[in-house]
Amino acid sequence: MVSSVGTYVDKFERMLEQYTGARHAVAVVNGTAGLHIALKLAGVMPGDEVLVPALTFVASANAVTYCGASPHFVDSEEATLGIDPDKLREYLKNTTEQRSGACFNKKTGKVIRVILPMHTFGHPVRLEELLKVARDFYINLVEDAAESIGSLYHDKHTGTFGLLGVLSFNGNKTITTGGGGAILTNNRELAQKAKHLTTTAKIPHAWDYRHDEIGYNYRLPNLNAALGCAQLEHLPGFLESKRRLYHLYQAAFQGFIGGDLFSEPAGCQSNFWLQTLILNNEHKKELEPILAKVHEEKFLARPAWTPLNQLAPFQHFPSMDLQTTENLAQRILNLPSSTCLGPKD
Amino acid sequence: MVSSVGTYVDKFERMLEQYTGARHAVAVVNGTAGLHIALKLAGVMPGDEVLVPALTFVASANAVTYCGASPHFVDSEEATLGIDPDKLREYLKNTTEQRSGACFNKKTGKVIRVILPMHTFGHPVRLEELLKVARDFYINLVEDAAESIGSLYHDKHTGTFGLLGVLSFNGNKTITTGGGGAILTNNRELAQKAKHLTTTAKIPHAWDYRHDEIGYNYRLPNLNAALGCAQLEHLPGFLESKRRLYHLYQAAFQGFIGGDLFSEPAGCQSNFWLQTLILNNEHKKELEPILAKVHEEKFLARPAWTPLNQLAPFQHFPSMDLQTTENLAQRILNLPSSTCLGPKD
Repeated sequence: MVSSVGTYVDKFERMLEQYTGARHAVAVVNGTAGLHIALKLAGVMPGDEVLVPALTFVASANAVTYCGASPHFVDSEEATLGIDPDKLREYLKNTTEQRSGACFNKKTGKVIRVILPMHTFGHPVRLEELLKVARDFYINLVEDAAESIGSLYHDKHTGTFGLLGVLSFNGNKTITTGGGGAILTNNRELAQKAKHLTTTAKIPHAWDYRHDEIGYNYRLPNLNAALGCAQLEHLPGFLESKRRLYHLYQAAFQGFIGGDLFSEPAGCQSNFWLQTLILNNEHKKELEPILAKVHEEKFLARPAWTPLNQLAPFQHFPSMDLQTTENLAQRILNLPSSTCLGPKD
Repeated sequence: MVSSVGTYVDKFERMLEQYTGARHAVAVVNGTAGLHIALKLAGVMPGDEVLVPALTFVASANAVTYCGASPHFVDSEEATLGIDPDKLREYLKNTTEQRSGACFNKKTGKVIRVILPMHTFGHPVRLEELLKVARDFYINLVEDAAESIGSLYHDKHTGTFGLLGVLSFNGNKTITTGGGGAILTNNRELAQKAKHLTTTAKIPHAWDYRHDEIGYNYRLPNLNAALGCAQLEHLPGFLESKRRLYHLYQAAFQGFIGGDLFSEPAGCQSNFWLQTLILNNEHKKELEPILAKVHEEKFLARPAWTPLNQLAPFQHFPSMDLQTTENLAQRILNLPSSTCLGPKD
């Protein structure tokens, strides 16, 4: 047997712990798998609701449905492009009630079990305020840090503030394992459960095949973990390049009247995964023509995701007013962001 | 973006089609993911039942539960170690009724939607008889060919007889991609749906992010597909080595009174993934001491899986009488099966 269990998986996990400062890292096959298991471990059960930003990749909402739960979409803010903690607090105050240590949606009667903020394009959300909201309303916080490896909030790595956090090493991310991800947590028991659930819930034994619950085949292959180890060694250099590129765009867009280059939020150090131009409101009609033109010229640029509440499979899930999300989605333009782009490009 | 979509994924899929003779192959992240999607595409819905051999790896039953359905355990036969078609026919005759083109379990009232035979250790089940049972009782047949790449039934590759078939390239399989799998089908529409569902159900567009149903991140990374291409080139050589090893064991166990080396079923060409000794009934008490001794000597041998109906998470699912499974599970001993073992070993 050349096994998919192997020394590089362990090594990659220890390197991730050292890099992020999380007590425990569990490598998984991709970020989606990580979100699925992190939500389960944060207590999400069939019939629950999970607060998800409408402005995120579809994997976040998909993972909620894998738990048999409903995504409940919340609005983002211009300052971070992530969940707006003030608006969320007001919303929860008016629409939920707290009993027996849980948060109940007064309209649906369901338990809101988890809030799942995402650090958009590598820019941290206002974690301190969101953690307070979570605590005050008896909701667990799980960080979707799929885009934010290398991003710090108050000098601490994103993904290490919530009960659990999830990284992604998909092919388009700052570092890649081909496909891959990791669950971060400071809780030893949760880490052990994450490892158990992602490896078919097999009871350790030299030869017996026994499994004590319904598990998943979410293990990261050793081959991909080996690539991850090598990539992590390059991460500081990649982050420097990303920041240098940001400064190049900053200089290039000096005096530009069509919009603003998005910078890192106060008190944060962003990884600048994707460089982001936010068009002014009066120029948002130009987003589609710009995208068409840029693609015609064979450059890679992209808009934000279609807000998840607008997708057919998610239209019937609960949602707060999403004014800022809907506006931002018409104004976000991600510019070419490769670490190999320099002044000449 | 160094993408996880890549030329090796396409190449690997075309090579798999050529090798197996299936019209379409869709590469996926592992066999479990392949089973999940194949069952969904075969029509398995929440509340349905799926006929699963109790003598198989836990992934088969897990995948059924991911669809919100119940595994319904059926017995195996000594001749193939896979589902016994005669016993299954009798059982279905007595316990189900056929109406509106579906098979209803008279006891639970649920629809039995799919039968999921597995080609144990690479030895094909009696496909012709099972296909007849499936047809007669209005049940779809999906082949769990996770262990049987290279195994032929009547000169045709396993995994290409059912509506869909699933291969695995896990680290312990005949060929490996670190972790990986593939869905096989001759139905073009099902192949397209498999590709769509395993790649987040994104609607193709140069820059827009729109998804038209709840999808999965089950794509095989390009890196692993590249390894798969190289491994497929070596497969004929691996199969020769496996067969040579079988003949070596055959010679070594000549005159052995404790049991019989399992050979390929009539009309089949097995890949001999795992070499298998079936202890005689009067020697089955020696299985555990043999395993302990062999592991003590640092050789890798293993028993069959614990029958799935005996595992805590599956004890409450429906099941037929499993006499042969329970007996076989006490008598199966898989011997060291690596392609690199020779006469000296």
